[in-house]
Amino acid sequence: MGVQAITMEAGSRHLSAEELSTRLESVGAERYHHRHPFHLLMHEGHLTRGQLQAWALNRYYYQSRIPIKDAIILSRSEDANFRRAWRKRLADQDGDGGAGGLECWLQLAEATDLERKRVCSCGEVLPGVRYAVDAYLALVERGTLLEAVASSLTEMFAKHLIALRLDALRRHYPWLTNGLGYFEARLSQAPEDARFAFEWVYEHARTREEQELAVRALTRKCELLWAQLDALYFAYVQPGWPPPGAFRPEAS
Amino acid sequence: MGVQAITMEAGSRHLSAEELSTRLESVGAERYHHRHPFHLLMHEGHLTRGQLQAWALNRYYYQSRIPIKDAIILSRSEDANFRRAWRKRLADQDGDGGAGGLECWLQLAEATDLERKRVCSCGEVLPGVRYAVDAYLALVERGTLLEAVASSLTEMFAKHLIALRLDALRRHYPWLTNGLGYFEARLSQAPEDARFAFEWVYEHARTREEQELAVRALTRKCELLWAQLDALYFAYVQPGWPPPGAFRPEAS
Repeated sequence: MGVQAITMEAGSRHLSAEELSTRLESVGAERYHHRHPFHLLMHEGHLTRGQLQAWALNRYYYQSRIPIKDAIILSRSEDANFRRAWRKRLADQDGDGGAGGLECWLQLAEATDLERKRVCSCGEVLPGVRYAVDAYLALVERGTLLEAVASSLTEMFAKHLIALRLDALRRHYPWLTNGLGYFEARLSQAPEDARFAFEWVYEHARTREEQELAVRALTRKCELLWAQLDALYFAYVQPGWPPPGAFRPEAS
Repeated sequence: MGVQAITMEAGSRHLSAEELSTRLESVGAERYHHRHPFHLLMHEGHLTRGQLQAWALNRYYYQSRIPIKDAIILSRSEDANFRRAWRKRLADQDGDGGAGGLECWLQLAEATDLERKRVCSCGEVLPGVRYAVDAYLALVERGTLLEAVASSLTEMFAKHLIALRLDALRRHYPWLTNGLGYFEARLSQAPEDARFAFEWVYEHARTREEQELAVRALTRKCELLWAQLDALYFAYVQPGWPPPGAFRPEAS
Protein backbone atom coordinates (compact mmCIF):
# COMPACT_ATOMS: atom_id res chain seq x y z
CA MET A 1 0.00 0.00 0.00
CA GLY A 2 2.88 2.31 0.88
CA VAL A 3 4.57 1.37 -2.36
CA GLN A 4 1.41 2.00 -4.32
CA ALA A 5 0.98 5.39 -2.72
CA ILE A 6 4.53 6.29 -3.66
CA THR A 7 4.10 5.03 -7.21
CA MET A 8 0.90 7.01 -7.59
CA GLU A 9 2.49 10.22 -6.44
CA ALA A 10 5.72 9.62 -8.29
CA GLY A 11 4.33 11.02 -11.49
CA SER A 12 3.61 14.28 -9.74
CA ARG A 13 5.84 17.29 -9.94
CA HIS A 14 8.84 18.12 -7.78
CA LEU A 15 7.93 19.88 -4.53
CA SER A 16 9.34 23.29 -3.62
CA ALA A 17 11.29 23.53 -0.36
CA GLU A 18 8.22 24.98 1.31
CA GLU A 19 5.93 22.27 0.02
CA LEU A 20 8.36 19.54 1.05
CA SER A 21 8.64 21.06 4.50
CA THR A 22 4.85 21.13 4.78
CA ARG A 23 4.66 17.47 3.73
CA LEU A 24 7.20 16.49 6.36
CA GLU A 25 5.48 18.60 9.01
CA SER A 26 2.22 16.81 8.27
CA VAL A 27 3.91 13.44 8.84
CA GLY A 28 5.12 14.73 12.20
CA ALA A 29 1.74 16.14 13.16
CA GLU A 30 0.18 12.75 12.62
CA ARG A 31 2.92 10.34 13.60
CA TYR A 32 5.56 11.87 15.87
CA HIS A 33 5.63 10.41 19.38
CA HIS A 34 4.42 13.61 21.02
CA ARG A 35 0.97 12.08 20.57
CA HIS A 36 1.78 8.73 22.16
CA PRO A 37 -0.30 7.92 25.25
CA PHE A 38 2.86 7.23 27.26
CA HIS A 39 4.07 10.77 26.64
CA LEU A 40 0.63 12.19 27.33
CA LEU A 41 0.61 10.45 30.72
CA MET A 42 4.12 11.74 31.37
CA HIS A 43 3.28 15.30 30.54
CA GLU A 44 0.11 15.22 32.61
CA GLY A 45 2.11 14.10 35.63
CA HIS A 46 0.50 10.65 35.80
CA LEU A 47 3.59 8.45 35.66
CA THR A 48 5.06 6.86 38.76
CA ARG A 49 8.74 7.02 39.54
CA GLY A 50 9.02 3.37 38.52
CA GLN A 51 7.48 4.09 35.13
CA LEU A 52 9.86 7.00 34.60
CA GLN A 53 12.72 4.70 35.55
CA ALA A 54 11.55 2.18 32.96
CA TRP A 55 11.40 4.96 30.38
CA ALA A 56 14.86 6.32 31.23
CA LEU A 57 16.41 2.85 31.29
CA ASN A 58 14.85 1.71 28.04
CA ARG A 59 15.43 4.92 26.17
CA TYR A 60 19.09 4.77 27.16
CA TYR A 61 19.40 1.93 24.67
CA TYR A 62 18.13 4.31 21.97
CA GLN A 63 20.55 7.01 23.15
CA SER A 64 23.45 4.56 23.13
CA ARG A 65 22.83 3.71 19.47
CA ILE A 66 22.63 7.33 18.28
CA PRO A 67 26.39 7.87 17.90
CA ILE A 68 26.62 4.50 16.18
CA LYS A 69 23.85 5.52 13.81
CA ASP A 70 25.60 8.82 13.11
CA ALA A 71 28.94 7.12 12.53
CA ILE A 72 27.26 4.81 10.01
CA ILE A 73 25.88 7.85 8.21
CA LEU A 74 29.33 9.47 8.29
CA SER A 75 30.87 6.31 6.86
CA ARG A 76 28.44 6.43 3.94
CA SER A 77 29.29 9.93 2.74
CA GLU A 78 32.10 10.75 0.35
CA ASP A 79 31.67 14.49 0.96
CA ALA A 80 34.03 15.99 3.54
CA ASN A 81 31.75 19.04 3.97
CA PHE A 82 28.85 16.80 4.86
CA ARG A 83 30.97 14.69 7.19
CA ARG A 84 32.34 17.79 8.92
CA ALA A 85 28.81 19.05 9.58
CA TRP A 86 27.49 15.65 10.63
CA ARG A 87 30.41 15.08 13.00
CA LYS A 88 28.81 17.69 15.29
CA ARG A 89 26.20 15.08 16.19
CA LEU A 90 28.86 12.68 17.44
CA ALA A 91 30.40 15.45 19.52
CA ASP A 92 26.96 16.40 20.89
CA GLN A 93 26.15 12.87 21.97
CA ASP A 94 29.55 11.52 23.03
CA GLY A 95 30.77 14.82 24.47
CA ASP A 96 33.44 17.25 23.38
CA GLY A 97 35.25 18.38 26.48
CA GLY A 98 32.04 18.63 28.53
CA ALA A 99 29.33 16.04 29.12
CA GLY A 100 27.59 14.84 25.97
CA GLY A 101 24.04 13.68 25.47
CA LEU A 102 24.76 10.12 26.57
CA GLU A 103 26.26 11.26 29.86
CA CYS A 104 23.36 13.68 30.38
CA TRP A 105 20.89 10.87 29.80
CA LEU A 106 22.66 8.80 32.45
CA GLN A 107 22.29 11.74 34.82
CA LEU A 108 18.57 11.75 34.07
CA ALA A 109 18.41 8.02 34.79
CA GLU A 110 20.28 8.60 38.05
CA ALA A 111 17.82 11.34 38.96
CA THR A 112 15.08 8.68 38.75
CA ASP A 113 17.14 6.72 41.29
CA LEU A 114 18.61 4.10 39.01
CA GLU A 115 22.24 3.07 39.20
CA ARG A 116 24.31 4.15 36.24
CA LYS A 117 25.87 0.72 35.82
CA ARG A 118 22.50 -0.96 35.61
CA VAL A 119 21.37 1.44 32.89
CA CYS A 120 24.64 1.23 30.91
CA SER A 121 24.55 -2.55 30.78
CA CYS A 122 21.32 -2.45 28.73
CA GLY A 123 20.63 -5.84 30.28
CA GLU A 124 17.00 -5.12 31.19
CA VAL A 125 15.89 -3.37 28.03
CA LEU A 126 12.56 -4.53 26.59
CA PRO A 127 12.94 -6.64 23.46
CA GLY A 128 10.37 -4.45 21.70
CA VAL A 129 12.49 -1.38 22.35
CA ARG A 130 15.58 -3.16 21.15
CA TYR A 131 13.93 -4.27 17.91
CA ALA A 132 12.68 -0.79 17.12
CA VAL A 133 16.07 0.78 17.80
CA ASP A 134 17.91 -1.87 15.81
CA ALA A 135 15.51 -1.24 12.93
CA TYR A 136 16.79 2.34 12.95
CA LEU A 137 20.38 1.15 12.50
CA ALA A 138 19.24 -1.15 9.69
CA LEU A 139 17.47 1.74 8.01
CA VAL A 140 20.54 3.98 7.96
CA GLU A 141 22.80 1.13 6.98
CA ARG A 142 20.76 -0.40 4.17
CA GLY A 143 18.65 2.47 2.88
CA THR A 144 20.09 5.14 0.62
CA LEU A 145 22.08 7.95 2.25
CA LEU A 146 19.12 10.20 1.43
CA GLU A 147 16.82 7.97 3.46
CA ALA A 148 19.34 7.80 6.29
CA VAL A 149 19.56 11.58 6.51
CA ALA A 150 15.82 12.06 6.03
CA SER A 151 15.14 9.70 8.92
CA SER A 152 16.80 12.24 11.20
CA LEU A 153 14.19 14.85 10.33
CA THR A 154 12.16 14.04 13.42
CA GLU A 155 14.45 16.73 14.85
CA MET A 156 12.10 19.16 13.10
CA PHE A 157 9.46 18.30 15.68
CA ALA A 158 11.73 17.82 18.69
CA LYS A 159 12.03 21.37 19.94
CA HIS A 160 8.35 21.84 20.59
CA LEU A 161 8.05 18.47 22.36
CA ILE A 162 11.14 19.08 24.47
CA ALA A 163 10.01 22.54 25.56
CA LEU A 164 6.68 21.07 26.61
CA ARG A 165 8.37 18.17 28.34
CA LEU A 166 10.86 20.29 30.27
CA ASP A 167 8.00 22.32 31.62
CA ALA A 168 5.93 19.23 32.49
CA LEU A 169 8.81 17.33 34.10
CA ARG A 170 9.79 20.32 36.26
CA ARG A 171 6.20 20.81 37.35
CA HIS A 172 5.09 17.24 37.99
CA TYR A 173 8.32 15.49 38.94
CA PRO A 174 10.40 18.12 40.77
CA TRP A 175 12.80 15.39 41.97
CA LEU A 176 13.91 15.03 38.34
CA THR A 177 14.99 18.65 37.99
CA ASN A 178 18.74 17.98 38.28
CA GLY A 179 18.57 15.43 35.51
CA LEU A 180 17.20 17.61 32.74
CA GLY A 181 20.48 18.72 31.13
CA TYR A 182 19.89 16.39 28.18
CA PHE A 183 16.71 18.16 27.14
CA GLU A 184 18.12 21.61 27.81
CA ALA A 185 20.96 20.92 25.37
CA ARG A 186 18.64 19.45 22.75
CA LEU A 187 16.53 22.63 22.75
CA SER A 188 19.20 24.34 20.67
CA GLN A 189 20.90 21.30 19.09
CA ALA A 190 17.78 19.76 17.56
CA PRO A 191 16.71 22.78 15.49
CA GLU A 192 20.27 23.27 14.14
CA ASP A 193 20.50 19.61 13.20
CA ALA A 194 17.06 19.69 11.62
CA ARG A 195 17.87 22.74 9.52
CA PHE A 196 21.04 21.20 8.15
CA ALA A 197 19.37 17.87 7.43
CA PHE A 198 16.34 19.46 5.77
CA GLU A 199 18.50 21.57 3.47
CA TRP A 200 20.62 18.57 2.59
CA VAL A 201 17.55 16.44 1.87
CA TYR A 202 15.97 19.17 -0.25
CA GLU A 203 19.17 19.56 -2.23
CA HIS A 204 19.73 15.84 -2.75
CA ALA A 205 16.19 14.65 -3.42
CA ARG A 206 16.26 15.76 -7.04
CA THR A 207 13.10 14.00 -8.22
CA ARG A 208 9.64 13.68 -6.75
CA GLU A 209 10.31 9.95 -6.30
CA GLU A 210 13.30 10.78 -4.13
CA GLN A 211 11.27 13.32 -2.18
CA GLU A 212 8.71 10.61 -1.52
CA LEU A 213 11.48 8.28 -0.33
CA ALA A 214 12.55 10.96 2.14
CA VAL A 215 8.97 11.34 3.39
CA ARG A 216 8.75 7.59 3.80
CA ALA A 217 12.04 7.43 5.72
CA LEU A 218 10.73 10.06 8.12
CA THR A 219 7.54 8.03 8.50
CA ARG A 220 9.60 4.92 9.32
CA LYS A 221 11.53 6.88 11.93
CA CYS A 222 8.30 8.12 13.53
CA GLU A 223 7.10 4.52 13.63
CA LEU A 224 10.18 3.29 15.43
CA LEU A 225 10.01 6.05 18.04
CA TRP A 226 6.34 5.24 18.55
CA ALA A 227 7.00 1.50 18.82
CA GLN A 228 9.45 2.07 21.67
CA LEU A 229 6.72 3.78 23.67
CA ASP A 230 4.23 1.05 22.78
CA ALA A 231 6.60 -1.48 24.35
CA LEU A 232 6.96 0.68 27.45
CA TYR A 233 3.23 1.28 27.72
CA PHE A 234 2.38 -2.36 27.37
CA ALA A 235 4.96 -3.50 29.91
CA TYR A 236 4.74 -0.76 32.53
CA VAL A 237 1.42 1.07 32.29
CA GLN A 238 -1.47 -1.16 31.48
CA PRO A 239 -1.98 -4.08 31.69
CA GLY A 240 1.69 -4.24 32.69
CA TRP A 241 3.76 -7.38 32.41
CA PRO A 242 7.39 -6.83 31.52
CA PRO A 243 8.84 -10.02 30.05
CA PRO A 244 11.17 -12.16 32.15
CA GLY A 245 14.53 -10.46 32.58
CA ALA A 246 13.27 -6.99 31.71
CA PHE A 247 13.45 -4.09 34.16
CA ARG A 248 10.92 -4.23 37.03
CA PRO A 249 10.45 -1.06 39.07
CA GLU A 250 10.63 -1.74 42.80
CA ALA A 251 7.90 0.78 43.42
CA SER A 252 5.19 -0.99 41.45
CA MET B 1 50.53 -20.77 5.58
CA GLY B 2 49.54 -17.66 7.52
CA VAL B 3 46.82 -19.65 9.22
CA GLN B 4 49.23 -22.45 10.08
CA ALA B 5 51.68 -19.97 11.57
CA ILE B 6 48.93 -18.50 13.70
CA THR B 7 47.74 -21.91 14.82
CA MET B 8 51.24 -22.95 15.74
CA GLU B 9 51.84 -19.85 17.84
CA ALA B 10 48.38 -19.83 19.33
CA GLY B 11 49.35 -22.30 21.99
CA SER B 12 52.08 -19.96 23.12
CA ARG B 13 51.79 -17.62 26.05
CA HIS B 14 50.35 -14.12 26.10
CA LEU B 15 52.86 -11.44 25.09
CA SER B 16 53.76 -8.55 27.36
CA ALA B 17 53.17 -5.04 26.01
CA GLU B 18 56.85 -4.76 25.17
CA GLU B 19 56.93 -8.12 23.41
CA LEU B 20 53.81 -7.30 21.41
CA SER B 21 55.29 -3.98 20.42
CA THR B 22 58.46 -5.72 19.28
CA ARG B 23 56.42 -8.21 17.23
CA LEU B 24 54.53 -5.39 15.54
CA GLU B 25 57.74 -3.44 14.93
CA SER B 26 59.24 -6.47 13.22
CA VAL B 27 56.23 -6.67 10.87
CA GLY B 28 56.83 -3.02 10.01
CA ALA B 29 60.55 -3.47 9.51
CA GLU B 30 59.89 -6.19 6.99
CA ARG B 31 56.66 -5.09 5.33
CA TYR B 32 55.94 -1.38 5.73
CA HIS B 33 56.02 0.54 2.47
CA HIS B 34 59.12 2.54 3.41
CA ARG B 35 60.98 -0.28 1.66
CA HIS B 36 58.99 -0.19 -1.55
CA PRO B 37 61.05 0.61 -4.68
CA PHE B 38 58.66 3.43 -5.60
CA HIS B 39 59.38 5.18 -2.32
CA LEU B 40 63.10 4.50 -2.64
CA LEU B 41 63.09 6.19 -6.05
CA MET B 42 61.08 9.08 -4.59
CA HIS B 43 63.43 9.60 -1.71
CA GLU B 44 66.52 9.41 -3.92
CA GLY B 45 65.10 12.15 -6.12
CA HIS B 46 64.61 9.92 -9.15
CA LEU B 47 60.92 10.45 -9.84
CA THR B 48 59.72 12.79 -12.56
CA ARG B 49 57.04 15.35 -11.94
CA GLY B 50 54.62 13.14 -13.87
CA GLN B 51 55.35 10.19 -11.62
CA LEU B 52 54.82 12.33 -8.53
CA GLN B 53 51.55 13.51 -10.04
CA ALA B 54 50.48 9.90 -10.53
CA TRP B 55 51.39 9.16 -6.92
CA ALA B 56 49.53 12.20 -5.55
CA LEU B 57 46.46 11.53 -7.69
CA ASN B 58 46.26 7.84 -6.87
CA ARG B 59 47.01 8.21 -3.21
CA TYR B 60 44.24 10.78 -2.97
CA TYR B 61 41.83 7.87 -3.36
CA TYR B 62 43.38 6.30 -0.26
CA GLN B 63 43.18 9.61 1.61
CA SER B 64 39.54 10.04 0.62
CA ARG B 65 38.63 6.68 2.16
CA ILE B 66 40.39 7.32 5.48
CA PRO B 67 37.52 9.24 7.12
CA ILE B 68 35.11 6.63 5.81
CA LYS B 69 37.27 3.90 7.33
CA ASP B 70 37.40 5.77 10.64
CA ALA B 71 33.65 6.35 10.66
CA ILE B 72 33.13 2.61 10.12
CA ILE B 73 35.37 1.92 13.11
CA LEU B 74 33.45 4.51 15.15
CA SER B 75 30.17 2.87 14.17
CA ARG B 76 31.41 -0.48 15.46
CA SER B 77 32.26 0.64 18.99
CA GLU B 78 29.80 0.75 21.85
CA ASP B 79 32.26 2.62 24.06
CA ALA B 80 31.83 6.40 24.16
CA ASN B 81 35.39 6.85 25.49
CA PHE B 82 36.78 4.98 22.52
CA ARG B 83 34.58 6.87 20.08
CA ARG B 84 35.57 10.21 21.61
CA ALA B 85 39.25 9.40 21.16
CA TRP B 86 38.81 7.97 17.66
CA ARG B 87 36.79 10.98 16.53
CA LYS B 88 40.06 12.96 16.55
CA ARG B 89 41.02 11.09 13.39
CA LEU B 90 37.94 12.33 11.57
CA ALA B 91 38.71 15.87 12.67
CA ASP B 92 42.35 15.49 11.57
CA GLN B 93 41.43 14.29 8.11
CA ASP B 94 38.26 16.25 7.35
CA GLY B 95 39.39 19.40 9.17
CA ASP B 96 38.22 21.08 12.33
CA GLY B 97 38.18 24.78 11.68
CA GLY B 98 41.43 24.71 9.70
CA ALA B 99 42.42 22.55 6.73
CA GLY B 100 42.35 18.82 7.39
CA GLY B 101 44.48 16.07 5.90
CA LEU B 102 42.30 15.69 2.82
CA GLU B 103 42.56 19.37 1.96
CA CYS B 104 46.31 19.30 2.61
CA TRP B 105 46.69 16.35 0.29
CA LEU B 106 44.86 18.28 -2.42
CA GLN B 107 47.34 21.11 -1.89
CA LEU B 108 50.14 18.60 -2.41
CA ALA B 109 48.51 17.41 -5.63
CA GLU B 110 48.14 21.02 -6.76
CA ALA B 111 51.82 21.61 -6.02
CA THR B 112 52.57 18.83 -8.55
CA ASP B 113 50.55 20.91 -11.03
CA LEU B 114 47.38 18.86 -11.07
CA GLU B 115 43.96 20.44 -11.01
CA ARG B 116 42.07 19.85 -7.76
CA LYS B 117 38.90 18.86 -9.57
CA ARG B 118 40.69 16.20 -11.55
CA VAL B 119 42.15 14.68 -8.40
CA CYS B 120 38.88 14.87 -6.43
CA SER B 121 36.92 13.07 -9.12
CA CYS B 122 39.04 9.90 -8.60
CA GLY B 123 38.22 9.18 -12.23
CA GLU B 124 41.76 8.25 -13.25
CA VAL B 125 42.77 6.14 -10.28
CA LEU B 126 44.46 2.83 -11.11
CA PRO B 127 42.21 -0.18 -10.56
CA GLY B 128 44.98 -1.84 -8.53
CA VAL B 129 45.06 1.11 -6.14
CA ARG B 130 41.29 1.07 -5.86
CA TYR B 131 41.21 -2.65 -5.06
CA ALA B 132 43.83 -2.35 -2.36
CA VAL B 133 42.11 0.62 -0.72
CA ASP B 134 38.69 -1.03 -0.90
CA ALA B 135 40.21 -4.10 0.74
CA TYR B 136 41.06 -1.82 3.67
CA LEU B 137 37.41 -0.81 4.05
CA ALA B 138 36.39 -4.47 3.85
CA LEU B 139 38.90 -5.35 6.54
CA VAL B 140 37.58 -2.77 9.03
CA GLU B 141 33.97 -3.57 8.17
CA ARG B 142 34.10 -7.35 8.30
CA GLY B 143 36.97 -8.13 10.63
CA THR B 144 36.61 -7.83 14.39
CA LEU B 145 36.93 -4.37 15.94
CA LEU B 146 40.28 -5.52 17.29
CA GLU B 147 41.51 -6.23 13.76
CA ALA B 148 40.12 -2.93 12.53
CA VAL B 149 41.98 -0.99 15.19
CA ALA B 150 45.14 -3.07 14.84
CA SER B 151 45.21 -2.39 11.12
CA SER B 152 45.81 1.28 11.96
CA LEU B 153 49.06 0.40 13.72
CA THR B 154 51.09 1.25 10.62
CA GLU B 155 51.04 4.69 12.28
CA MET B 156 53.74 3.24 14.52
CA PHE B 157 56.11 3.37 11.56
CA ALA B 158 54.82 6.53 9.92
CA LYS B 159 56.79 9.17 11.79
CA HIS B 160 60.17 7.91 10.71
CA LEU B 161 59.10 7.54 7.08
CA ILE B 162 57.48 10.97 7.01
CA ALA B 163 60.50 12.71 8.52
CA LEU B 164 62.69 11.06 5.90
CA ARG B 165 60.25 11.92 3.16
CA LEU B 166 59.88 15.58 4.14
CA ASP B 167 63.62 15.95 3.98
CA ALA B 168 63.89 14.14 0.63
CA LEU B 169 60.99 15.98 -1.00
CA ARG B 170 62.34 19.38 0.06
CA ARG B 171 65.79 18.53 -1.23
CA HIS B 172 64.96 16.82 -4.52
CA TYR B 173 61.68 18.43 -5.52
CA PRO B 174 61.87 22.00 -4.22
CA TRP B 175 58.82 22.95 -6.32
CA LEU B 176 56.77 20.73 -4.00
CA THR B 177 57.71 22.63 -0.85
CA ASN B 178 54.41 24.53 -0.53
CA GLY B 179 52.46 21.28 -0.65
CA LEU B 180 53.98 19.51 2.32
CA GLY B 181 51.50 20.55 5.02
CA TYR B 182 49.96 17.08 5.04
CA PHE B 183 53.19 15.43 6.15
CA GLU B 184 54.06 18.18 8.60
CA ALA B 185 50.75 17.60 10.41
CA ARG B 186 51.16 13.82 10.36
CA LEU B 187 54.54 14.12 12.12
CA SER B 188 52.74 14.77 15.40
CA GLN B 189 49.35 13.17 14.64
CA ALA B 190 50.65 9.73 13.66
CA PRO B 191 52.57 8.98 16.88
CA GLU B 192 49.60 10.12 19.04
CA ASP B 193 47.24 7.92 17.05
CA ALA B 194 49.64 4.99 17.19
CA ARG B 195 50.06 5.27 20.95
CA PHE B 196 46.30 5.23 21.54
CA ALA B 197 45.72 2.35 19.13
CA PHE B 198 48.56 0.27 20.53
CA GLU B 199 47.32 0.66 24.09
CA TRP B 200 43.79 -0.20 23.04
CA VAL B 201 44.97 -3.27 21.13
CA TYR B 202 47.12 -4.42 24.01
CA GLU B 203 44.23 -4.03 26.42
CA HIS B 204 41.67 -5.76 24.19
CA ALA B 205 43.72 -8.62 22.81
CA ARG B 206 43.29 -10.75 25.90
CA THR B 207 44.62 -14.03 24.53
CA ARG B 208 47.64 -14.92 22.45
CA GLU B 209 45.26 -15.87 19.63
CA GLU B 210 43.85 -12.35 19.65
CA GLN B 211 47.33 -10.88 19.73
CA GLU B 212 48.14 -12.93 16.64
CA LEU B 213 44.98 -11.65 14.96
CA ALA B 214 46.19 -8.11 15.63
CA VAL B 215 49.60 -8.91 14.15
CA ARG B 216 47.92 -10.38 11.11
CA ALA B 217 45.68 -7.34 10.66
CA LEU B 218 48.76 -5.11 10.71
CA THR B 219 50.36 -7.41 8.14
CA ARG B 220 47.28 -7.10 5.91
CA LYS B 221 47.45 -3.33 6.20
CA CYS B 222 51.12 -3.30 5.21
CA GLU B 223 50.22 -5.46 2.22
CA LEU B 224 47.58 -3.08 1.02
CA LEU B 225 49.83 -0.05 1.32
CA TRP B 226 52.51 -1.95 -0.58
CA ALA B 227 50.08 -3.07 -3.28
CA GLN B 228 49.15 0.55 -4.02
CA LEU B 229 52.78 1.32 -4.79
CA ASP B 230 53.11 -1.84 -6.87
CA ALA B 231 50.29 -0.59 -9.07
CA LEU B 232 51.95 2.82 -9.36
CA TYR B 233 55.36 1.33 -10.11
CA PHE B 234 54.04 -0.98 -12.75
CA ALA B 235 52.00 1.72 -14.49
CA TYR B 236 54.31 4.71 -14.24
CA VAL B 237 57.89 3.62 -13.64
CA GLN B 238 58.84 0.54 -15.55
CA PRO B 239 57.79 -0.84 -17.93
CA GLY B 240 54.98 1.71 -17.66
CA TRP B 241 51.60 1.22 -19.22
CA PRO B 242 48.71 2.73 -17.28
CA PRO B 243 45.47 0.99 -18.30
CA PRO B 244 43.00 2.79 -20.55
CA GLY B 245 41.31 5.62 -18.69
CA ALA B 246 43.94 5.85 -15.95
CA PHE B 247 45.96 9.01 -15.36
CA ARG B 248 48.68 9.69 -17.93
CA PRO B 249 51.28 12.33 -17.07
CA GLU B 250 51.73 14.84 -19.86
CA ALA B 251 55.45 14.96 -19.17
CA SER B 252 56.18 11.33 -19.97
